[in-house]
Amino acid sequence: MKILVLNCGSSSVKYKLLEMPQGDVLAQGAVEKLGLPDSFLKLTLPNGEKVVIEKEMPEHTVAVELILSALTDEKTGCIKSYNEIEAVGHRLVHGGEKFSNSVEITPEVIAKVEECIPLAPLHNPANLKGIAAIEKLLPGIRQVGVFDTAFFQTMPEHVYRYALPYDMCNKHGVRRYGFHGTSHRYVSARACEILGLDYNKTRIITAHIGNGASIAATMNGKALDVSLGMTPVEGLMMGTRSGDVDPGVLTFLMEAENLDAAGISELINKKSGVLGVSGISSDMREIEDGIKHGNERAILAMTMYDYRIKKYVGAYAAAMGGVDVLVFTGGVGENQFSTREKVCSNMEFMGIVFDPAVNNGMRGKEMVISKPESKVKVIVVPTDEEYMIASDTMTILAK
Amino acid sequence: MKILVLNCGSSSVKYKLLEMPQGDVLAQGAVEKLGLPDSFLKLTLPNGEKVVIEKEMPEHTVAVELILSALTDEKTGCIKSYNEIEAVGHRLVHGGEKFSNSVEITPEVIAKVEECIPLAPLHNPANLKGIAAIEKLLPGIRQVGVFDTAFFQTMPEHVYRYALPYDMCNKHGVRRYGFHGTSHRYVSARACEILGLDYNKTRIITAHIGNGASIAATMNGKALDVSLGMTPVEGLMMGTRSGDVDPGVLTFLMEAENLDAAGISELINKKSGVLGVSGISSDMREIEDGIKHGNERAILAMTMYDYRIKKYVGAYAAAMGGVDVLVFTGGVGENQFSTREKVCSNMEFMGIVFDPAVNNGMRGKEMVISKPESKVKVIVVPTDEEYMIASDTMTILAK
Repeated sequence: MKILVLNCGSSSVKYKLLEMPQGDVLAQGAVEKLGLPDSFLKLTLPNGEKVVIEKEMPEHTVAVELILSALTDEKTGCIKSYNEIEAVGHRLVHGGEKFSNSVEITPEVIAKVEECIPLAPLHNPANLKGIAAIEKLLPGIRQVGVFDTAFFQTMPEHVYRYALPYDMCNKHGVRRYGFHGTSHRYVSARACEILGLDYNKTRIITAHIGNGASIAATMNGKALDVSLGMTPVEGLMMGTRSGDVDPGVLTFLMEAENLDAAGISELINKKSGVLGVSGISSDMREIEDGIKHGNERAILAMTMYDYRIKKYVGAYAAAMGGVDVLVFTGGVGENQFSTREKVCSNMEFMGIVFDPAVNNGMRGKEMVISKPESKVKVIVVPTDEEYMIASDTMTILAK
Repeated sequence: MKILVLNCGSSSVKYKLLEMPQGDVLAQGAVEKLGLPDSFLKLTLPNGEKVVIEKEMPEHTVAVELILSALTDEKTGCIKSYNEIEAVGHRLVHGGEKFSNSVEITPEVIAKVEECIPLAPLHNPANLKGIAAIEKLLPGIRQVGVFDTAFFQTMPEHVYRYALPYDMCNKHGVRRYGFHGTSHRYVSARACEILGLDYNKTRIITAHIGNGASIAATMNGKALDVSLGMTPVEGLMMGTRSGDVDPGVLTFLMEAENLDAAGISELINKKSGVLGVSGISSDMREIEDGIKHGNERAILAMTMYDYRIKKYVGAYAAAMGGVDVLVFTGGVGENQFSTREKVCSNMEFMGIVFDPAVNNGMRGKEMVISKPESKVKVIVVPTDEEYMIASDTMTILAK
């Protein structure tokens, strides 16, 4: 069964065509610079070759049309006709408090996603444009929405609520929602599968760390806590996002630098994090390069990045009364072994016995990196959100 | 040796006269509503009786003059003449990066404290007025400044820095400074004294929780981390302060509620925390009352308050590779045994074996509340910042 997975942003559309239930990737690529004159589609052929097709794409329907025609094209394609696509699964960013599971797209679902637009003013409208494009180009095909926030709807109120005025928060839907839920759900379940543990009886910390980053606590099959909040700024240090900051610093900087809400928002979203501290880059590979050359601010940025993950691991262990499994995923979690080592070393007090020999140099593979005697199993699990979306789509279609 | 300890705020002056080195309190009281027509001095007589003296006090010199005359008054006093006061120790709020220890007040010190005014625009000027008042009323007396921030100047850069643009932070002195340093220093050292541990070889978490609240990690005699940051808003949930909040929520609320920097500052400082969530009070005693009557928002506020402390305990344990001593202090830490129990229960994974029987009902005493077999010693130590200030004053005068 072929399922097309779409991730529609405001200026990009990523896609993967998967053969399910195996999860084989038949085709993948992305439209970039959507809405600009120099927009293009790049895709990877089955033989690994990369192709770029330049075309002005003013909006999502044109982009999706180009993707579909690339999928059926004699040279770049892998299917003969659109009819081979059984269903489309969409990554949807914000389901607010309305969605705690993946759902089949209906007019009612679309209306609810629209109601969540104030919570994700950039992402939800783009997601909806992708749904509309598919409806127009493949009329009648079944579509499923998989929300980034849904996994975290099990958080109890004392966890998701901020200590801000109660009624004001209710009025605007201000609370912790969390993001990267599809990834946290996938890697936490997959880790238990690999380790032979019962997902519903296990305490798991999942560190999804990359350019965006979040860390989550999942206990007995349910998400308990997550570092990303109402917006994608809270928690860990990220590529360009600040993560946790003294709230009083923001009002101080508004006055000291004469910034309004938009100015502060740009500051904490685009100019902070690894980029802001290092002054070099938001990309950890360039930071690693800087460290090799003895760049002090690169070292500082990396040390901060690692220290903050370590503290969250301790915090979530306390929240769950201990931890059974610690999972690393995401671009940094899967590849940057120095971060994994920093986070896990000197953590014997909570039952982590790390194995630096296995960890050292290990990139992008499913691999246990704690020693056999470690009470806490530490494991790398490369994330696969598209597989999870396709899998949810298949499950819902079978109902 | 009699030492007068002053804590001069913008609208209050608190004082204690101590007999050192024993630390006996000879007199104590406070001027309130300083600057308003209905300002008054309240003081406690040695027999425990409380006296209120009403007097319009437009500024600090008048307030300090009234305190000095009450100290020497036949009815309310305990000394015959000002000359019996050997020295004055001041609580100073913000020493920025300029002070990592207590110091004798000199013109150079005053100039440096003035330079720190942008970091504490309300507190530092009031502190300086107290110093000037003493200089005027007791000319030539030696004065010592004890900074709330000094203890935390040992924090390494990766701990004190925010993941905000590096140069902008340097320009304005934006970094974690921490507060309540005098209290954290006192209770951490006192806990080791009681437990017979070497302060310089012990990992200590100190939870100073009350209306204001902070939690600190002290390792081998040096502060490593603390939850209060550049301003007194970050970290734990407090009486009216929010503590940690998604930074993105603040810019969201600025737009949704049309608030400027001052409006957000008032929101997170005065209308949030326990008050904002419960809608009842910022005072934990009233929250406990509400809980007894089944008030759901009181229960929510308390559950959030406890959960956040628990997470910080885990975070700081991870930061230090484990913990040897956990200290509770401050109004809530010394008295609210339910919070201590919530924080410490189900924490066996990190070596805490709590003793609910000893803890239950225990208020305001030095007391070990972990079981003998607990690797982590949990202890209540009532704080005594004034003693610490008098002690520092004595030490510096002896040099």
